[in-house]
Amino acid sequence: MKTDYPLNEVDHRNEASSRDIATPTKQLVITRVISILDLSMRIIGAIGTLASAITMGTTNQTLPFTIQFNLFRAQYDDLPTFTFFVIANSVVCGYLVLVSLPISIFHVIKSEAKISRIILLIFDTVMFGLLTAGASAAAAIVYLAHKGNASANWSAICQQFYSFCERISGSLIGSFVTVIMLMLIIITSAIAISRP
Amino acid sequence: MKTDYPLNEVDHRNEASSRDIATPTKQLVITRVISILDLSMRIIGAIGTLASAITMGTTNQTLPFTIQFNLFRAQYDDLPTFTFFVIANSVVCGYLVLVSLPISIFHVIKSEAKISRIILLIFDTVMFGLLTAGASAAAAIVYLAHKGNASANWSAICQQFYSFCERISGSLIGSFVTVIMLMLIIITSAIAISRP
Repeated sequence: MKTDYPLNEVDHRNEASSRDIATPTKQLVITRVISILDLSMRIIGAIGTLASAITMGTTNQTLPFTIQFNLFRAQYDDLPTFTFFVIANSVVCGYLVLVSLPISIFHVIKSEAKISRIILLIFDTVMFGLLTAGASAAAAIVYLAHKGNASANWSAICQQFYSFCERISGSLIGSFVTVIMLMLIIITSAIAISRP
Repeated sequence: MKTDYPLNEVDHRNEASSRDIATPTKQLVITRVISILDLSMRIIGAIGTLASAITMGTTNQTLPFTIQFNLFRAQYDDLPTFTFFVIANSVVCGYLVLVSLPISIFHVIKSEAKISRIILLIFDTVMFGLLTAGASAAAAIVYLAHKGNASANWSAICQQFYSFCERISGSLIGSFVTVIMLMLIIITSAIAISRP
């Protein structure tokens, strides 16, 4: 009877202490999973903006014949909005790869970091705004190129520049994928920041 | 000497306990200041989107004479992008007033609320994306209306519709003010969420 008692007590203490350790460890594991999720979304986002910038930046089409308008060659920088689109995508891609990826890797290693997460969230929000502005301005012009506008007497240029329009429409996809990624990154960052 | 000692001890204890209480109170005051800042930014944002939606929604201009184009009357819904702009501004204004203001007032009263802040931040991010998309798409079209584009053979319509262009340009201001407000709201929310 006398030997049983201390053994039992030790057992209880061990259980209690392992429970005490388990909770912060579980917290850390969840935060680490969030950090890895954040990292992979940043990589997808970087690929999306890179693809968009390259697709839009290398788009040009020269028509092999003379048409009714004074337009024989279409290039992305004929329209200032597309130039802004390429700049916005390049800036966001540069930010994601050069600034956010190293910090995001640091967050996977050191899950409890908080101030660096807030600073990253501030930059993410600004970049989200920049990329959304670039992508939606380009989308408005692409829509106009496809449909034209009778009231303003703007004709659809896609009938002549079919391949040009195909490419500029396609280049929007990568950009909008990154917009959604950045939105999810901001939300997951907020959840990571809220964790004790 | 004997009466001094207990008095001193009481003094020390009082000091210690008041310091213990002071730290959480100071934390709460800072969080409350952030909450009030958040509330006022939401009110400014709501006014901005409301002004934008009304200005754009009521814009139309009828020319008193016949011009070279088949365009005599300009209205915001002649261009689908402006319709999207009005819808985006109305949705964000409705969200700011009907959903976010009550929750923001609740945060001023109950500063330590955390889950409701995260939920609000998710909606804020979505609304920020929606409004940025609407405002920048409209800005791209307004730019085109002012400058036109020689390559695409799109003429500037602002020479004919001067008053129409003045109003649609002006209506962008309120929207961009709200975009900046929402950006600051997201950042302050993240700071409030990080506070213990």
